[in-house]
Amino acid sequence: MNTNNVSKRFLKIPASPIRKLVPLASDAIKKGVKVLYFNIGDPDIETPDIMLQELKNWKKNPITYSRSHGEPVLLEALKKYYNRLGFPFIYVEHLLVTLGGSEAISMAFLAITEAGDEILTFEPFYTNYNSYAAVNGIKITPVKTLARDGFHLPNASEIEKKINKKTKGILYCNPNNPTGTVYTRQEIEMLVSLAKKHNLFLISDEVYREFVFDGKIHVSILSFFKQIPSQAILVDSLSKRYSLCGARLGLISSLNKDIMDGVMRIAQGRLSAGLIDQIMAGQLADVPASYFEKVHREYQKRRDVLYQGLNSIPGVKVRKPEGAFYLFPDISHYLTTTHPTSLDLAEYLMEEAQVAVVPGSAFGAEGYIRISYATSQDEIREGMNRITKALANLGR
Amino acid sequence: MNTNNVSKRFLKIPASPIRKLVPLASDAIKKGVKVLYFNIGDPDIETPDIMLQELKNWKKNPITYSRSHGEPVLLEALKKYYNRLGFPFIYVEHLLVTLGGSEAISMAFLAITEAGDEILTFEPFYTNYNSYAAVNGIKITPVKTLARDGFHLPNASEIEKKINKKTKGILYCNPNNPTGTVYTRQEIEMLVSLAKKHNLFLISDEVYREFVFDGKIHVSILSFFKQIPSQAILVDSLSKRYSLCGARLGLISSLNKDIMDGVMRIAQGRLSAGLIDQIMAGQLADVPASYFEKVHREYQKRRDVLYQGLNSIPGVKVRKPEGAFYLFPDISHYLTTTHPTSLDLAEYLMEEAQVAVVPGSAFGAEGYIRISYATSQDEIREGMNRITKALANLGR
Repeated sequence: MNTNNVSKRFLKIPASPIRKLVPLASDAIKKGVKVLYFNIGDPDIETPDIMLQELKNWKKNPITYSRSHGEPVLLEALKKYYNRLGFPFIYVEHLLVTLGGSEAISMAFLAITEAGDEILTFEPFYTNYNSYAAVNGIKITPVKTLARDGFHLPNASEIEKKINKKTKGILYCNPNNPTGTVYTRQEIEMLVSLAKKHNLFLISDEVYREFVFDGKIHVSILSFFKQIPSQAILVDSLSKRYSLCGARLGLISSLNKDIMDGVMRIAQGRLSAGLIDQIMAGQLADVPASYFEKVHREYQKRRDVLYQGLNSIPGVKVRKPEGAFYLFPDISHYLTTTHPTSLDLAEYLMEEAQVAVVPGSAFGAEGYIRISYATSQDEIREGMNRITKALANLGR
Repeated sequence: MNTNNVSKRFLKIPASPIRKLVPLASDAIKKGVKVLYFNIGDPDIETPDIMLQELKNWKKNPITYSRSHGEPVLLEALKKYYNRLGFPFIYVEHLLVTLGGSEAISMAFLAITEAGDEILTFEPFYTNYNSYAAVNGIKITPVKTLARDGFHLPNASEIEKKINKKTKGILYCNPNNPTGTVYTRQEIEMLVSLAKKHNLFLISDEVYREFVFDGKIHVSILSFFKQIPSQAILVDSLSKRYSLCGARLGLISSLNKDIMDGVMRIAQGRLSAGLIDQIMAGQLADVPASYFEKVHREYQKRRDVLYQGLNSIPGVKVRKPEGAFYLFPDISHYLTTTHPTSLDLAEYLMEEAQVAVVPGSAFGAEGYIRISYATSQDEIREGMNRITKALANLGR
């Protein structure tokens, strides 16, 4: 047999950090135990009815390609959405519909880097940034943020230490996954200043924009689009906001025409996003405000239930974050010689408690785990009971 | 204003070769003239009813992520499909569902090349191969095929002239887009031999597999999977076969575990293909044979109508191809100082006859145009009338 070698760059694409949990989950399912999935940001909240009605009333036949730029009904709805958010200068030519936020980030990386270049981001950060970096042959340069600062950004001078000739941009996720931190206006102004000073692109991943609690205000990069028009890039997604994870719809937006022309060329090569998903999501501007109010209340309650649960476990240190739908507790108290890493602890929780969580190491933060609250309050309570018991059994 | 530069590799991604036709088409539409679109492979044939029923009966709420590997119902249906085709050794672990054939080809390129490497393919070839090559920082090395040979492959020695140290694989499209040529078993055996001799990967793009006419037999690369298990890669799509272009569903398949593991890692990074599309397409193994028989008859008739129409235009040379749904006539007779290139002629046909065709130059074959017959026989007849008149007006 001829053994052909795949490329080195292909081998560098990182595997999912939680793949080891999958067989453990299968074992539990075989035993008839209900596994509680706190590992993924896949909401159980219902998709707006007005969107699902588009499926029931489906008339188009055949299922043809959509336009590479995006289906007109969705582009118009998105324009309306951003205009209503307070950005009347956004037109459809500033938007390109992507196959989820994933494709948008990958496009942004390709747009601003040559192979070997660096993008700076704040650690802990969303695991898959590493995948898009590997696919595009670039490096993610992490700048640490700390639990004691609520995972807010360090000073400009700390960030500047990591900027070098190869640094082409700064990527930040606001509200943050995995920490839930919502950056202040001052923090974003600092990033804008750094982008100006060092001639960097600034990419804001705002897929959790609507998940901001306790009356905090989300400051979008769109507020700075006119100040740094050639440098600012917005990455967005419909997945979380409308419980449309499986619709694979996101977008990339910029006032930089070179960027929008280039992402359009990539989009033409891959033809289009899904037609059905786009027609369905095209209803987004007509989703009633009551939908969001209800969803928002529910997530805030879940956060509080999860926070209380975690807070009452001895040795677990946890902050109450202002956004997204994750808690990121410090579980280092439970790391011992038998379970030295957060991955070991995550495996233990799956085996012992049939609860799936993501080890902090997946985000570059050993000593933590990420717990999603995209599941019901009942499941969160049940999960907290299981985790509390399992950790108690560790005898710490 | 700070003017930030996008990357050189981003600027290298080619624009759509028919973008210049778009404003001309818009002009025609404004004048109230019906534009006939023979430029894209977007079938007007109905999507199987059994699939559309999945939309009407949609129950899942919310629209969650699918699995990165593919939704189980679709993977099982695909396995059944390949098993029935005569390949019982294909299991779901040999398949990964992709976002159209586009993503599958791009994944294959990344799997087998480093930046700067080369993939050999046969010219004329599908335009977007250049896009996926640019995105992955590699080069497509074309090997010419000729109309006088029915665009069949040249001798092995001719192909070998283009193989060098950077060549990592041979990609071929069978049936071919744009020529419609269906390669013989002998031709594919030659490619398999070359792959063995030069230690190359062999990628077969079979998105037009079912569109083979006149009783010809399609020879799939799957027939050679066991002979070169580490080298053979299949790229496929549901777009043409089930009129599902807008569902963005394709697949990549190989017996090489390194390849399947690696594409799975990429897939995990981009999360999943569309849930709704996959549930819908999951019915594919139950589409009645009568659907394909009817579709097949219809396409063969269209081909014949289009062939007759083109053949009766003075100076146009055209072959009757055995597969896909394109004709690729030689229109060099009509290239003059006023319209020196196939792009000029395509622009002329749009302006004069409101007919959209793709210039041969888009596929690397100046002097030709590609005409799709994914439209009705009536539209084809009307289009032929318009093209005949427009070319007559050129006074050649």
